[in-house]
Amino acid sequence: MTQTLQSQPYAPPPTDSAHRVAALNRNDKPFHVVLAQQFDRTTVDQLCQLADMIRSIGGSRQGNQFLSTLLSHRRAMLYFIQPSTRTFLSFTSACQIVGMRYGEVRDRSTSSEVKGESEDDTIRTFSQYFDLIIVRHPMEGFAEHVATMLNEMSRPIPVFNAGSGKDQHPTQAMLDIYTLYRSFLGPQGTRSEPRYSRNVFAGKTIAFVGDLKRGRTVRSLAYLLCRYPGVRLLFISPPELGIGEDILDYVSRHGIEYELGNDLRKHIGECDAVYMTRLQDEHDVAGESKKIDYYAYSLTYEMAGQFRPSLAIMHPLPRRHELDPRLDALPQAKYWAQVRNGMWMRAALIASVFNVDVAIRDHYQAYYTF
Amino acid sequence: MTQTLQSQPYAPPPTDSAHRVAALNRNDKPFHVVLAQQFDRTTVDQLCQLADMIRSIGGSRQGNQFLSTLLSHRRAMLYFIQPSTRTFLSFTSACQIVGMRYGEVRDRSTSSEVKGESEDDTIRTFSQYFDLIIVRHPMEGFAEHVATMLNEMSRPIPVFNAGSGKDQHPTQAMLDIYTLYRSFLGPQGTRSEPRYSRNVFAGKTIAFVGDLKRGRTVRSLAYLLCRYPGVRLLFISPPELGIGEDILDYVSRHGIEYELGNDLRKHIGECDAVYMTRLQDEHDVAGESKKIDYYAYSLTYEMAGQFRPSLAIMHPLPRRHELDPRLDALPQAKYWAQVRNGMWMRAALIASVFNVDVAIRDHYQAYYTF
Amino acid sequence: MTQTLQSQPYAPPPTDSAHRVAALNRNDKPFHVVLAQQFDRTTVDQLCQLADMIRSIGGSRQGNQFLSTLLSHRRAMLYFIQPSTRTFLSFTSACQIVGMRYGEVRDRSTSSEVKGESEDDTIRTFSQYFDLIIVRHPMEGFAEHVATMLNEMSRPIPVFNAGSGKDQHPTQAMLDIYTLYRSFLGPQGTRSEPRYSRNVFAGKTIAFVGDLKRGRTVRSLAYLLCRYPGVRLLFISPPELGIGEDILDYVSRHGIEYELGNDLRKHIGECDAVYMTRLQDEHDVAGESKKIDYYAYSLTYEMAGQFRPSLAIMHPLPRRHELDPRLDALPQAKYWAQVRNGMWMRAALIASVFNVDVAIRDHYQAYYTF
Repeated sequence: MTQTLQSQPYAPPPTDSAHRVAALNRNDKPFHVVLAQQFDRTTVDQLCQLADMIRSIGGSRQGNQFLSTLLSHRRAMLYFIQPSTRTFLSFTSACQIVGMRYGEVRDRSTSSEVKGESEDDTIRTFSQYFDLIIVRHPMEGFAEHVATMLNEMSRPIPVFNAGSGKDQHPTQAMLDIYTLYRSFLGPQGTRSEPRYSRNVFAGKTIAFVGDLKRGRTVRSLAYLLCRYPGVRLLFISPPELGIGEDILDYVSRHGIEYELGNDLRKHIGECDAVYMTRLQDEHDVAGESKKIDYYAYSLTYEMAGQFRPSLAIMHPLPRRHELDPRLDALPQAKYWAQVRNGMWMRAALIASVFNVDVAIRDHYQAYYTF
Repeated sequence: MTQTLQSQPYAPPPTDSAHRVAALNRNDKPFHVVLAQQFDRTTVDQLCQLADMIRSIGGSRQGNQFLSTLLSHRRAMLYFIQPSTRTFLSFTSACQIVGMRYGEVRDRSTSSEVKGESEDDTIRTFSQYFDLIIVRHPMEGFAEHVATMLNEMSRPIPVFNAGSGKDQHPTQAMLDIYTLYRSFLGPQGTRSEPRYSRNVFAGKTIAFVGDLKRGRTVRSLAYLLCRYPGVRLLFISPPELGIGEDILDYVSRHGIEYELGNDLRKHIGECDAVYMTRLQDEHDVAGESKKIDYYAYSLTYEMAGQFRPSLAIMHPLPRRHELDPRLDALPQAKYWAQVRNGMWMRAALIASVFNVDVAIRDHYQAYYTF
Repeated sequence: MTQTLQSQPYAPPPTDSAHRVAALNRNDKPFHVVLAQQFDRTTVDQLCQLADMIRSIGGSRQGNQFLSTLLSHRRAMLYFIQPSTRTFLSFTSACQIVGMRYGEVRDRSTSSEVKGESEDDTIRTFSQYFDLIIVRHPMEGFAEHVATMLNEMSRPIPVFNAGSGKDQHPTQAMLDIYTLYRSFLGPQGTRSEPRYSRNVFAGKTIAFVGDLKRGRTVRSLAYLLCRYPGVRLLFISPPELGIGEDILDYVSRHGIEYELGNDLRKHIGECDAVYMTRLQDEHDVAGESKKIDYYAYSLTYEMAGQFRPSLAIMHPLPRRHELDPRLDALPQAKYWAQVRNGMWMRAALIASVFNVDVAIRDHYQAYYTF
């Protein structure tokens, strides 16, 4: 079954990005969260602001109880065929925060697919029971295919892409930019001020390190960073695992300065943020990762002396050798906060898709500003 | 373990149907939903009416919040040892609609049975934590055995049969008759009128197609249709996969007209409803399904010209070749609605077993009639 | 992975019990439920009283709805790597009773550990999403290690030990002592009276039977019984599966009388409670269990004539041959009640750790006393 599926990827339609985005953002259909390119700067900024509001409101028992009534009449299906604990728990936590109940299918062996059902029918079935489908899938383009299919049902519902194939992981990109934003903004000012409107990315150098060829989180984040003129991107990877040409084209077209490198040790001192990624052996069929100098793509404890005080160290996790656990204790380590930020950002995304963001903003204005 | 279990089926007690029904409907014990024969016509009609009310109330956020308080003090265990996504999600969705929390056991490998516990002790344990047990099991008669065992505990609780062996699947039969009812009744009239009391089945021809020998949903539905005088049943199957003699006896005893056939193509034009089923290879030990002319038991796109305008195409799903996906777009296709109907019907059944049906009727009368 | 983990147990720190307890009960950190020794007599008594209150309040729909608001703003992670249905469902039921939502990880194959993540990072990730971690793990000392690690995070949260290795199972011990208490106290008096303060254990003989070497529940319960002067303990086991010397030392130091035996048949008539355990083949690597006279460590139907009328038969379950199912019908059988007691006791423990025990006591005083 898996074999068959992997050999027949749902190729994204051969149209350009603008057409794909338009098909996902139709006014007469639900908003599907599938590609990072769907989010313009205003939307990104508003979602970061909304995530901050949810975090503040969620800090009290009363606030939590308000949040948990917002979507108590809606239910989500998490169809997570590709192994993932972190993203799965992040989404379920986000659902719980906004009061949404959910079901899950994580293993084809307990499903009707063992009786010969097509995966399309499985998705159509979900759409009869649930109000949202969150998919994580090994096939590139799968979430986009689901969005198209759901738009044809008599009761269309939104889909979230929680990672499909090596293509994109848009909600990870949103939590990453939220983490960068919070780190660059520094200590919180007055709570009534809209914090996420200034371009704090201008003049900042952000390095991406590791396997940039297969790391879909980097691809999605690169798209979003192009909304912030003046940011400078460093792509540091072994030549054979370099960032895709399509991304570099996109970055160039948006007038963003970038540089390629192959040794983190030469660049760490100039970074405002360093986004570490692991070498993904599980996708490695050709054995490219054998001959790599891992130290050139690792952040070690010995390098801490070169860190800028305001450096933000990030990692989508799980980490392996490329990020020394002894760095966890440093103020520059943002990767655990990044995990928690993901929960708030996903709650913000869900709230927005179901149009309860307004209720959150009203509640925040009423109780959390002075 | 599975081997041992399957070679020792819990044979239903060798008493007649009336005795079995009486044992499940005892006044001094919880009501167990195990056999289709337990439901007389009044009960079927009232449950269909209740399912409609839940659907209407569940259409609004306020209505949903009312529903979700009904059984927030009760909890269900779903013991689904036989693979099933559709029925599992239907029941969990139904639980969520009426506010019931639940736990699940779907895999013996995570359970205490690997330490040598008997399955009876496993069920007894569940009965200490939960207020309802929903079982799906490969063994014929298992749910009935559980009902008997639970009646002996100091704190008896109800059991739902979500499919055991090739015997019965009563909640599927209830959702099927609900779907037929809705289809035959046509567009909804004034909402205050009790719709489910007229015998709209009289004069209708309903065809069952495919493997009728092992398809437990057909068996259960046939029992229920016998409550509606004047309905005509067509059983279309390969001779070696024909409907059981016990069902034909039951149908005859209730004065229902039936006919046997072996080619759907000859009958499709006379059908008011056609209930497709798949050939269940997974139960096929003797290889009977090899020599069958599949086209005689399939509904193809080419046959659409012969469909009556009011035809209801149904299928318990999952489907394979016997039901062409291109038919999905036709107004006659009712199988996706059938999936969703199952959720409402199961919510109605749960509500009834816990006696909160009255609260639903009161709420409906107060807010949804004019 | 499992191999590696099992060959590197997290050895408990080589300090004495008092130091370990102090590290888990720090005033500036959350209270971690890891060792039975953490609970002094006042705490045990109060928790039993609290469990009774929750049981009473949970008997009505309104009471249940009160309970389910208590921790609706908190969420728990159940990390159950070692197979367990009973304890898992007991904890999830307890969470549901106090309104706590939860997530679960029960299988490393769906987790990020397959991508090479360390288990420590897995736990750190959980701590970003959840407010409580409940762990069941094959490694001795694992829960204690987690407590230490969580205390170092910027957002420390409590951990519950739901069984780690052959060391301890403190929540099982708490439910066991609660069951003994209820059995020795007899029929409930006026509900306003604090029942759990008298030492009803004084003068009672409690036998532990079976594999006492590897049965962690017995170890934990023995610690707790030492809080009740005058109790007499009987340890009945094959010599090669005897209770640990560390436990006998602890019992002696606390002035508790005990006796060792090797045949239950000689002692059953003098017992006020008999705590049966199964021979745990799954831990048996050296084959010690082959040569044992199982009848000497079994409770058979034939022995019922020798039972004291007030005998309490207990078993942590699952049972095998050592406890005859025909005994279930006797009033002396307390093992099914023991299962249900576990749910109330765990709800009491969770409520206490999050300081909502006061709200429960207030509610009980207001509505359930006369």
